[in-house]
Amino acid sequence: MSAQPRIKLKIQLYCGDQIAMGPGKADLLDAIREHGSISAAGRAMDMSYRRAWLLVDVMNRCWREPLVETSPGSHGGGARITPFGEQVLTRYRSLQARLDGASDCPDQNALAGALRDAPRDSQKSSH
Amino acid sequence: MSAQPRIKLKIQLYCGDQIAMGPGKADLLDAIREHGSISAAGRAMDMSYRRAWLLVDVMNRCWREPLVETSPGSHGGGARITPFGEQVLTRYRSLQARLDGASDCPDQNALAGALRDAPRDSQKSSH
Repeated sequence: MSAQPRIKLKIQLYCGDQIAMGPGKADLLDAIREHGSISAAGRAMDMSYRRAWLLVDVMNRCWREPLVETSPGSHGGGARITPFGEQVLTRYRSLQARLDGASDCPDQNALAGALRDAPRDSQKSSH
Repeated sequence: MSAQPRIKLKIQLYCGDQIAMGPGKADLLDAIREHGSISAAGRAMDMSYRRAWLLVDVMNRCWREPLVETSPGSHGGGARITPFGEQVLTRYRSLQARLDGASDCPDQNALAGALRDAPRDSQKSSH
């Protein structure tokens, strides 16, 4: 009866050991586009400015071109997604949609059907 | 030139808030089958006995039947994958293979081509 998704797909793109793109970074890009600054995007995602800035920094260093442009010299200043960043984000979302579609298959249905709705209680002893 | 995989797909199956199956738990099941006990499987995966046991406990409580059976009363005793557990693992691996195949598409190729091989150095200032 539950309509909750039972399966989550996490797509991570790597540049060396660093995650260049994943679900959290993609959501942060969406929030930067919506809010127009890294600090406001971070606040909207319940994330410190420092953490949001670090995620942007990793993205900007991992791709061949920056994904986010900031107004120079101002921490509270504006930020926007570059055209290159929009391309990367669009392709990432498209890949997510493709894999979400591909996961809808008999194996997934069988697995979802074999799951409990919630974990049963832990049993410390067997009696 | 790099043959490293640039993309990782993590498939997580949820039971309430708990992860009933994911890449680490699937690998732990393989290790239990290979080594015949939770402690040996944990050692092989560089994981404490406690952590391996907790992962098994979550799995056993999240699915309609246990995935792992242990010899009663002995921490160092044997463990084996149940037939139900083998079915779940086989379907999970099959879903992984299906999604790995589906990720091989123009979007993924374009994303992989737009990544650097390693992050460029962080720039503290813009000069």
